[in-house]
Amino acid sequence: MRDLTALRDAMRAFTDARDWARFHDPKSLILALVGEVGELAELFQWLPAEDARELAATEPLRTRVGEELADVLLYLVRLADVLDVDLGAAAAAKLLDAEDRFSSAEYQGRAPTKG
Amino acid sequence: MRDLTALRDAMRAFTDARDWARFHDPKSLILALVGEVGELAELFQWLPAEDARELAATEPLRTRVGEELADVLLYLVRLADVLDVDLGAAAAAKLLDAEDRFSSAEYQGRAPTKG
Amino acid sequence: MRDLTALRDAMRAFTDARDWARFHDPKSLILALVGEVGELAELFQWLPAEDARELAATEPLRTRVGEELADVLLYLVRLADVLDVDLGAAAAAKLLDAEDRFSSAEYQGRAPTKG
Amino acid sequence: MRDLTALRDAMRAFTDARDWARFHDPKSLILALVGEVGELAELFQWLPAEDARELAATEPLRTRVGEELADVLLYLVRLADVLDVDLGAAAAAKLLDAEDRFSSAEYQGRAPTKG
Repeated sequence: MRDLTALRDAMRAFTDARDWARFHDPKSLILALVGEVGELAELFQWLPAEDARELAATEPLRTRVGEELADVLLYLVRLADVLDVDLGAAAAAKLLDAEDRFSSAEYQGRAPTKG
Repeated sequence: MRDLTALRDAMRAFTDARDWARFHDPKSLILALVGEVGELAELFQWLPAEDARELAATEPLRTRVGEELADVLLYLVRLADVLDVDLGAAAAAKLLDAEDRFSSAEYQGRAPTKG
Repeated sequence: MRDLTALRDAMRAFTDARDWARFHDPKSLILALVGEVGELAELFQWLPAEDARELAATEPLRTRVGEELADVLLYLVRLADVLDVDLGAAAAAKLLDAEDRFSSAEYQGRAPTKG
Repeated sequence: MRDLTALRDAMRAFTDARDWARFHDPKSLILALVGEVGELAELFQWLPAEDARELAATEPLRTRVGEELADVLLYLVRLADVLDVDLGAAAAAKLLDAEDRFSSAEYQGRAPTKG
């Protein structure tokens, strides 16, 4: 299910079948998203940075990682739906904007600094 | 761009054009994801819970919310790519699993408890 | 143990006794902090905003909340130690700065906006 | 200000002087905490893991890191106050519990696994 609209509709049906829309105000959904990001972080926290990718490619971690990435996506899609945001369009616009702001010449091999 | 595969390819091209793959180990990308989730949280933190949805539907907040949702999605898609996880398939599998675990009869109008 | 220096020393001893300092680089500790904040968020995500305080005052939630708040503090204290930051001094300085930036007259009953 | 009770009282006075207690329900404060953890994460996200500690010891990053650590602590202290949790006692109890669960013999140089 690689289409964001299909995912949105599936989450909407899942929610409605359980009468869970009552719980899905934006602040609650952001907290749920934070919970899933936290579970993802816990899977990686003590792995050596340089080996993390390879370690996460082997079971049982691989399956756990897929589950947490999925949970983050599902809550994100649901949050966008509640907020009436077209997530795919927003991502495409943001990527265009990033291409403008970070020219490949100026930022070649150099991470933008924050703070 | 509602197709997750297209988004993944666009992020991959964006990254490669700037030689930024060197920064994209899993732990760094999770921290970047956390940063974007934090910016999303800041937009909502002091809004009254019951009015948050409506307040986020009006400008300039509407545009800001779309941008932060997009940023979260883009880093999530990039992280899944680095980890070689098919995000759409993982989400579909997780949703099926949730449908099993939370029967609509047993969980009607009742949120699953955590902790 | 209300003294931040005592907490720092206790965490340092705990860490050293297990030879865990090798895992405690800043990025790993931030991910651990994110994991604990995520667990805290999960305890509150589906509670009605207006009842959350009261609901969290009754067991078994009260104990769980105390545990997660403690976990966040312990990792924060450990992270500050690793970064050689005097957490108490930094907090006092930040509070002074906030008192300057947000005058009680101008911000009376009005939340600072973000974004 | 290394005493958690003093910090709590200072945050309480700061909040009351601005009539901001109305904004400080638990879910809002957790979102504010998430926002600050996100800003902390952004400071470290693209630093090489093995150099992060040293890079964060030099200005201007050092000051920024201290500010974000302080913000996280201040919201955490405020959240604990709103929830009537004695943060220092909770941390001491959690540390005792951890000393029990993770014996220094069994966990010598070995990180506890999550997930």
